[in-house]
Amino acid sequence: MGQSINAANQEVLERILAATPVLVGVGRALDVIPGMQSTLILHAGPPITWDRMSGPLRGAVIGGLIFEGLARDEAGAVRLVERGSVRFAPCHHHGAVGPMAGVTTASMQVYIVENRAFGNRAFSNLNEGYGKVLRYGAYSEDVLVRLRWMNETLGPAVGAALERAGGVDMKTLIARQLTMGDEGHNRNVAGSATFGRLLAPHLAHAGLAPEALEQVLRYFADNDLAALNPVMAACKATMDAAHDVPGSMVVTCMARNGTDFGIRVSGLGDRWFSGPAEVPVGLFFPGFAADDANPDIGDSTITETAGIGAFAMAAAPAIVKFVGGTPREALEGTLEMYEITVGENPAFGLPPLDFRGTPTGIDIRKVVRTGITPRVNTGIAHKKPGVGQVGAGLVRPPMACFEQAVEAMAAALGR
Amino acid sequence: MGQSINAANQEVLERILAATPVLVGVGRALDVIPGMQSTLILHAGPPITWDRMSGPLRGAVIGGLIFEGLARDEAGAVRLVERGSVRFAPCHHHGAVGPMAGVTTASMQVYIVENRAFGNRAFSNLNEGYGKVLRYGAYSEDVLVRLRWMNETLGPAVGAALERAGGVDMKTLIARQLTMGDEGHNRNVAGSATFGRLLAPHLAHAGLAPEALEQVLRYFADNDLAALNPVMAACKATMDAAHDVPGSMVVTCMARNGTDFGIRVSGLGDRWFSGPAEVPVGLFFPGFAADDANPDIGDSTITETAGIGAFAMAAAPAIVKFVGGTPREALEGTLEMYEITVGENPAFGLPPLDFRGTPTGIDIRKVVRTGITPRVNTGIAHKKPGVGQVGAGLVRPPMACFEQAVEAMAAALGR
Repeated sequence: MGQSINAANQEVLERILAATPVLVGVGRALDVIPGMQSTLILHAGPPITWDRMSGPLRGAVIGGLIFEGLARDEAGAVRLVERGSVRFAPCHHHGAVGPMAGVTTASMQVYIVENRAFGNRAFSNLNEGYGKVLRYGAYSEDVLVRLRWMNETLGPAVGAALERAGGVDMKTLIARQLTMGDEGHNRNVAGSATFGRLLAPHLAHAGLAPEALEQVLRYFADNDLAALNPVMAACKATMDAAHDVPGSMVVTCMARNGTDFGIRVSGLGDRWFSGPAEVPVGLFFPGFAADDANPDIGDSTITETAGIGAFAMAAAPAIVKFVGGTPREALEGTLEMYEITVGENPAFGLPPLDFRGTPTGIDIRKVVRTGITPRVNTGIAHKKPGVGQVGAGLVRPPMACFEQAVEAMAAALGR
Repeated sequence: MGQSINAANQEVLERILAATPVLVGVGRALDVIPGMQSTLILHAGPPITWDRMSGPLRGAVIGGLIFEGLARDEAGAVRLVERGSVRFAPCHHHGAVGPMAGVTTASMQVYIVENRAFGNRAFSNLNEGYGKVLRYGAYSEDVLVRLRWMNETLGPAVGAALERAGGVDMKTLIARQLTMGDEGHNRNVAGSATFGRLLAPHLAHAGLAPEALEQVLRYFADNDLAALNPVMAACKATMDAAHDVPGSMVVTCMARNGTDFGIRVSGLGDRWFSGPAEVPVGLFFPGFAADDANPDIGDSTITETAGIGAFAMAAAPAIVKFVGGTPREALEGTLEMYEITVGENPAFGLPPLDFRGTPTGIDIRKVVRTGITPRVNTGIAHKKPGVGQVGAGLVRPPMACFEQAVEAMAAALGR
């Protein structure tokens, strides 16, 4: 039995390594995301009902409904939800991922990533940048104005540039950013600079007037997270193709909705194994403290699931200024993750470790056996809606997720 | 006496640390470089006559004369030189620096860097990118076509963008690239991506048609050395302000002309201390070997002189794929340089060394006492003109430069 599990895990690893995620375009969620509907709100993490949603997720839902024109204000949005006029579903149920609240609505422009080796697609919304943003639960007028600009100007321009460029090879982009001090989750400064410079020549032909073109190029100049969402969609496209391998114990999804942390396992179908999301430990922006922090939230853990993010911390010693710790601990963080993974990704060589590939493919058995849960780098949201990001740090999923999954696998295998 | 030398060295260090080099614009060499003349050819390294020039420098001189319209072909250029109709001078004698051959002629557009803390300016030509380029001694028609495009389109557009941006703070850019896997000499990929993204929004207003704008943005998308020349000019502006401190033993210039390696010392005026340039040891491009290599050439050693480049190797573990060695040796390379420098630059923190500042200010006494010469990262030129780059590697200046300088200082101090 152990042998067939190993073979299944190996198959999953091979699929992860064989993935070729290419960012091919931008489209409207309603048009491109399978099963998307005008009254459906996609959110980060495992399934959750309104009554259990945390502040930032509620805030983002309210903002999403106002953005869609389905509600005029907070009160209207809440009435709509409580009347049952909108449905909620995890992004992950629709091939999508979104950072923090992850709220994705029908009219939103989303990135489209194609895993060319397997033919599957994945999606992610556009990154809003810093400060008061929907993904941290803010929904004031300036947040909505920016979302509309992103939808009407940024998205179509980037879509046109991607088409003209013939897409952006995300595997190469991720490999490159790992040699430039990024880990691809909390630090995407090199990835964003690289993404922006690849698109810029094509943006010159997007038919924009100088003012509008300046704004789009400024988005890429200022937003060190511009690449996060395409990177996440690339990881999602990678892990979806590795899902549903019978008998495999490898985690293909980790995600949080601000209340629960949930995982899915390749050999265990669509079932979520969840536990209470923890509050990240890290550094807080001036004026904020641990008391202000919401429990862990967002689909961005898809990066760690695919073997980058905190798993590639060794590549990003400068990140400790943002999430805490020392460069030595960043190195040790990566080394620890080799203990719970089934292999290494040679496409993602870590320079400080002599180009050793990133630890890849979390084995739930190894997690339970060693007592080592996966490391996750993360932004920290304020627990109240509308405030935004208050810090960044490290967090781990609850061990209970992995224990439940191992039990479920034992049951499935008839033990 | 040792005490006053230490005080002088400290003064030099303080000037280096206080420097605030800002890239303020682009202008024509004849208009902006002090003492520039239409028949003056600036070149890298210490002074040299035509008969002692190496292949790549001769090739670049020929190309420069054709570019200027002073000669129509190689034979014409050589006649002009042998007739004594053109003069040669080191870039360094005119506040300028140029990578490899460093040939800078009167019509060329050059970067202008202002050290705002001290009011002095420095200059560098525009980087041509890879392949067959003038700085490696190539002067075929395609090389000249590209130089003309750089002069007529790229330079003015970048100049306009810099003016609109209010300049680019090079100290911040260098500090940032050192957290992104660059060392600022042989590896400038992050610096170039950052430089390009800062300029891009302003380039949208440079009045270029979409095709021309695309070409300019593509220059920044494709050229991972785009930032090298501004970084060099920033280092030159920094070190010039630290020159001429009586009694100081700190090196303010290291440069090679392909035949000689020369240094200048803060307390020893304009005198060069030179020795034979060595052939770099490194990795060669397919089809080339050590036999093809020209001795060390270029002013880019101004980066090491200012405390980055090979001195910041610890920041750039991925560079070993290009210059040879291991990430561990990259770390040790930086550590070794602390033994011959007078201080550390806290503005340039090295993440893998817990943000310790780069080793800064080479003390000629320490070099002679320890027997450790400065490390230099470098491109390797083919010894024949017109071929181009054949590899990249590491090199050190001859110890004789430092021994001569120490003797000269002893004589100057009356010992």
